[in-house]
Amino acid sequence: MLKYKERIFFGVQDTISGYLIDRLYEHGVRHAFGVPGDYVLAFYDQMHKSSIKIINTCDEQGAGFAADAYARLNGLGLVCVTYGVGGLKIVNTTAQAYAEKSPVVVLSGAPGVKEQEKDPLLHHKVRDFDTQKKVFEQVTVASTVLSDSQTAVDEIERVLAAAIQFKRPVYVELPRDMVMAKIGGHIHQRNAVIPRTDQTSLAESLQEAAAMINEAERPVILAGEEVHRFGLQDSLLEFVDGTRIPVASTILSKSVINELNPAYIGIYQGAVGEESVRRYVEASDCTIILGAMLTDLTLGMFSARIDKSKLIFATSEKISIKHHHYEGVLFADFIKGLSGLGIKSRQPQTIFRRKLPRRAKASKKPVTIRYMIQALNKFLKDDMIVITDVGDALFASTELVIRGNTQFLSPAYYASLGFAVPACIGAQTARPDLRPLVLVGDGAFQMTGTELTSAGRYGLNPIVVVLNNGGYLTERLLLDGSFNDLVNWDYASVPKLIGKGRGFSVLSEEDLDKALAASIKEKQFCILDVRLDPADMSKALRRLTAEMAKKVR
Amino acid sequence: MLKYKERIFFGVQDTISGYLIDRLYEHGVRHAFGVPGDYVLAFYDQMHKSSIKIINTCDEQGAGFAADAYARLNGLGLVCVTYGVGGLKIVNTTAQAYAEKSPVVVLSGAPGVKEQEKDPLLHHKVRDFDTQKKVFEQVTVASTVLSDSQTAVDEIERVLAAAIQFKRPVYVELPRDMVMAKIGGHIHQRNAVIPRTDQTSLAESLQEAAAMINEAERPVILAGEEVHRFGLQDSLLEFVDGTRIPVASTILSKSVINELNPAYIGIYQGAVGEESVRRYVEASDCTIILGAMLTDLTLGMFSARIDKSKLIFATSEKISIKHHHYEGVLFADFIKGLSGLGIKSRQPQTIFRRKLPRRAKASKKPVTIRYMIQALNKFLKDDMIVITDVGDALFASTELVIRGNTQFLSPAYYASLGFAVPACIGAQTARPDLRPLVLVGDGAFQMTGTELTSAGRYGLNPIVVVLNNGGYLTERLLLDGSFNDLVNWDYASVPKLIGKGRGFSVLSEEDLDKALAASIKEKQFCILDVRLDPADMSKALRRLTAEMAKKVR
Repeated sequence: MLKYKERIFFGVQDTISGYLIDRLYEHGVRHAFGVPGDYVLAFYDQMHKSSIKIINTCDEQGAGFAADAYARLNGLGLVCVTYGVGGLKIVNTTAQAYAEKSPVVVLSGAPGVKEQEKDPLLHHKVRDFDTQKKVFEQVTVASTVLSDSQTAVDEIERVLAAAIQFKRPVYVELPRDMVMAKIGGHIHQRNAVIPRTDQTSLAESLQEAAAMINEAERPVILAGEEVHRFGLQDSLLEFVDGTRIPVASTILSKSVINELNPAYIGIYQGAVGEESVRRYVEASDCTIILGAMLTDLTLGMFSARIDKSKLIFATSEKISIKHHHYEGVLFADFIKGLSGLGIKSRQPQTIFRRKLPRRAKASKKPVTIRYMIQALNKFLKDDMIVITDVGDALFASTELVIRGNTQFLSPAYYASLGFAVPACIGAQTARPDLRPLVLVGDGAFQMTGTELTSAGRYGLNPIVVVLNNGGYLTERLLLDGSFNDLVNWDYASVPKLIGKGRGFSVLSEEDLDKALAASIKEKQFCILDVRLDPADMSKALRRLTAEMAKKVR
Repeated sequence: MLKYKERIFFGVQDTISGYLIDRLYEHGVRHAFGVPGDYVLAFYDQMHKSSIKIINTCDEQGAGFAADAYARLNGLGLVCVTYGVGGLKIVNTTAQAYAEKSPVVVLSGAPGVKEQEKDPLLHHKVRDFDTQKKVFEQVTVASTVLSDSQTAVDEIERVLAAAIQFKRPVYVELPRDMVMAKIGGHIHQRNAVIPRTDQTSLAESLQEAAAMINEAERPVILAGEEVHRFGLQDSLLEFVDGTRIPVASTILSKSVINELNPAYIGIYQGAVGEESVRRYVEASDCTIILGAMLTDLTLGMFSARIDKSKLIFATSEKISIKHHHYEGVLFADFIKGLSGLGIKSRQPQTIFRRKLPRRAKASKKPVTIRYMIQALNKFLKDDMIVITDVGDALFASTELVIRGNTQFLSPAYYASLGFAVPACIGAQTARPDLRPLVLVGDGAFQMTGTELTSAGRYGLNPIVVVLNNGGYLTERLLLDGSFNDLVNWDYASVPKLIGKGRGFSVLSEEDLDKALAASIKEKQFCILDVRLDPADMSKALRRLTAEMAKKVR
């Protein structure tokens, strides 16, 4: 493969595909996830000759989830698919990226502009040639069809800038006869206008916030997922370390701060989370919410009680204090500004000081959720990323103590089953220094688990723990029927099917310990089929489903 | 499970869910394909208590394809999913149903009407609560949200009538707090107004057609997929048997007529199909197209040459003769009317008389596409349905001779990879009297092959032939690169993974014969991993890709 610096001398950068690949590369994109198809083959060929590496997945859905995880860790992600049969398979994964603020570029091939004349019935066409674009307009912040070489550069700049500013997906459709079209006009500017903070407004908002925090006796910070997305973890840490104000995360932002930090108090989730965290947060006389979306799951099915008149609420969408809003203040500038205000330092909190939980000795008894979490807490290494699917894979793993450089990734708002396995492909591709520890229920695994094929292909080595309880447990707790049953797969035989990896059947606590000990030494992916009692569950799931069940009938 | 006749005495038919289930049942729906989720659980519970049986799939995509196949064979199909994470996974399968005219009802749960007040961030929400409906408006002929008990009956009637009239998918969204809502007002009429044929217009069009056919020396019929969809095979047969006019099918309508019928001449596909069929059709002085969409694949990438001034063109969308159109004539009435016109009978054609091809004796040599098709032609039973995925699985299988009650099903226009395996679940559920013979490439199998889980669960016994050539062959022939490579799965070990079925590794002609002989005796599903030379292909694929390659760069 040609290196980027070489490639630009090959003179293709003045084509639409060349310019697009250059700009994606400059924004940090090094990989494209996807499945090829005839309308996008010419673009695949151009990528193949560039320094953007193509990562094949089994199905486009897998590519969509992988690109989402990659984008969350890398700042921008790319999924590249063919028209119709490719693009329309990733509407759901793009919707999740929209809902949870992940900047994914959806690049779709399309019939050539000339082919579209007279509106013929070309294969992969649904109703009109713009049907796919209309669909994606519903789930992206910007979209374009690069059908005009005179405007292509401006359009590329516009949509990429939107993805980066809003941390949400964008849609780019490239008709195949435009791939090698020369870009026209002059290149105005490589960077679209990025909004800037109004400094007067910023200063006023920070001063008001500082006064409010200093007057408060028990301020508390609720740090959300946008701190992650905008790469502001260090700014948050500076503020927290300087003031010692206690900080909670949400279920969506878990790992935004090292959970062994003395100021960390746990995950706030209204009545669904730990009662002590709930009481602490709701008794606060100054709640500082930084970059958190207030969703039903974040707020414990809206059981949360936070008084707006004691609230500082900063997100990428707006900055509010009590009942008024500040215009023109960027989230990043606000959070960075908090540390330069001389806000007074508090006594360190002690009641929530986290410790790594002790663990019982392994026995020959069947594995419980409780034992599994204890074992994983001990097992977790400083260079791991915990990736969970939806269900008790997510809720139980909120009890894992995320420390050091460990990260935590899950679709804790949009909650699309089947995310975790393909996400680990994207995550380890973006961060080869982090080994994925994947927690996934059997239902979710049956949707996308064979995407481990890509782990074998590209030398990735996630450790995948399948919570095998024979059904959709969360739904069983809401309203049960045989429709919540699953066929029992032999998950440990996945390596036999796809020709790589190592499988373990885990029937007892001892089996789990042995399988984890063996997995950590493996250079290939490992899959642990952990048999659980169908009625076993975490406390968090029990609390959540008690709230959720009220709405089902 | 309660029987239908009993159930209606339980007094739930005056709820929205009860009415909807009743009407689906009356229109012939006996099964729902899907994956449950919290927003649709209450409706699942109602279905579970009704005579509509729920068929679980691994992923919603599988349910969408299965419902499409079911709809093609049954006249109406149903896929039932949760909001967002379920619905948005089946945009592609619904798009295929739209493009290829398959009447699928997409039923999605949704947050309750009351829950949606004040626009909260509920899980599975993308942008607005109507985002999913706006997406489905692009890929359906009618859509509704049943949020008002006063209008629910009319809305249900309207969308079901549209599905049946246009043979295309419709979208029904059911907020969960409306599932048990009592239907309001009086029930006006159970059947929405169905358009009727203008008899004068019909008579005039038929007379003109009859005169044109009688004057012609070499009329020819091109029978399309709508003959299937509207259940008009018997009317076509009556016309063909009465007149002995030679009849061709398209790639999308293969099996519309028994291929051993003396009048059958083969698949017409322009320059991509058999040259002798092309010459015969294009030399005709009166071409009668009945219910065929003129797509790029039907027309051999538009290499077809059909003279409009010699054309009778009847579809569900319009009836045209030469350059003029008839208003208000229904397709079914036109095709039925053709037989009552006293059109003169011809001498039987003899040059295209089909025979079952002879087959060479099996050797220890590797299997070729040519040998495989010969073997399958011999193997094909009168009670089978051939279901093919896209690629050479489709193009090679055009050489299979479909006879007796055998059917042929493939996505030969929209061409979405991954259709065939989930489709066989839907097909055998709709027609337990037909055993599916599935031809699927390795790339397509890796997308949805694990949906065979449902075959094990529901006692289905398809025979699945995997054309294993290590890559996306069709794309290799257009523009190759490592992105067209596939990881080699051990397809014969799928039964080990999912706990049912029987697998065969097929390395030689003898292996193939033995595996087929063993499969026919099995009551469970069988999967044959047929290793093919990566460069081997059917003549049809070679001709097609030669045309397609012109457009790729």
